[in-house]
Amino acid sequence: MTGGRPVRLLGLDPGLAQTGWGVILVEGARLGHVAHGVLATLTTDPLPQRLATLHCGLADVIAQHAPDAVAIEEVFQNRNPQSTLKLGEARGVALLAAGLAGLVVHEVAARFVKKALTGTGAAEKTQVAYMVQRLLPAAGAVAADAADALAVAIAAAGTLRPGLAA
Amino acid sequence: MTGGRPVRLLGLDPGLAQTGWGVILVEGARLGHVAHGVLATLTTDPLPQRLATLHCGLADVIAQHAPDAVAIEEVFQNRNPQSTLKLGEARGVALLAAGLAGLVVHEVAARFVKKALTGTGAAEKTQVAYMVQRLLPAAGAVAADAADALAVAIAAAGTLRPGLAA
Repeated sequence: MTGGRPVRLLGLDPGLAQTGWGVILVEGARLGHVAHGVLATLTTDPLPQRLATLHCGLADVIAQHAPDAVAIEEVFQNRNPQSTLKLGEARGVALLAAGLAGLVVHEVAARFVKKALTGTGAAEKTQVAYMVQRLLPAAGAVAADAADALAVAIAAAGTLRPGLAA
Repeated sequence: MTGGRPVRLLGLDPGLAQTGWGVILVEGARLGHVAHGVLATLTTDPLPQRLATLHCGLADVIAQHAPDAVAIEEVFQNRNPQSTLKLGEARGVALLAAGLAGLVVHEVAARFVKKALTGTGAAEKTQVAYMVQRLLPAAGAVAADAADALAVAIAAAGTLRPGLAA
């Protein structure tokens, strides 16, 4: 899928309060850090406005970094229903940003992300964050939500070229 | 809240496969039907594209009918987690359309909608649809999702002017 050309992957970790994002460059077996950040919304804002904040922020990220594809974590059933609904609302807006930009979205299981980065699907969050900094030293210190987004992108990169992130 | 001016209310019944919408005109104690419809997405399309279809359809509805406010049903915890996630994704895109247009969103409990239209919070769906057609005869035959959207708008109209939809 990657061919010879470098591929830019945008990893997303959607959430209503904070949506993490991270862009990496996949060039053969090499991974490069491009940019990352966290889009935050005000809990005091009405829900439609919070979603509009995420929408505009993601549209900016996509316009600025021109990714070739998007990676996002699959969601399983381990949350309470109200959290799942809120996550769905933020996730819908994140997926919409990809859809409006005509980008393919790779959904990656959380366990696969952990395994791709640390070798075990049962890894702690801190271990994943540590490996993000090992694999992308140029990223420097990364906030938790952005580290998760970069981790998803790194794991998806491994599916583009088998063995890459293993 | 309505003052003397007629108010246009857009009711929404979000769903990933089908999102119902209905616009009513609230003028004092009178309700008028403006338009309604159902935005459908193809199950064969990727999720980001389905959400983009809903997004563009809702943007068109808002541009064409220029509502003053939006009404949407509150969601409770009576679905399975994967359905809740999908509903959240569609609902996020619906709320975003309101947010991008700068419209206030009234969230209305399902039981309140039933009670406002039929006098009982335990009414059947068919009874609610029957009352939508009684209250908005000009609407003619209305598909189920659009009837739900009109019902939410009618119930919300009752909160703008107490007693209106009782």
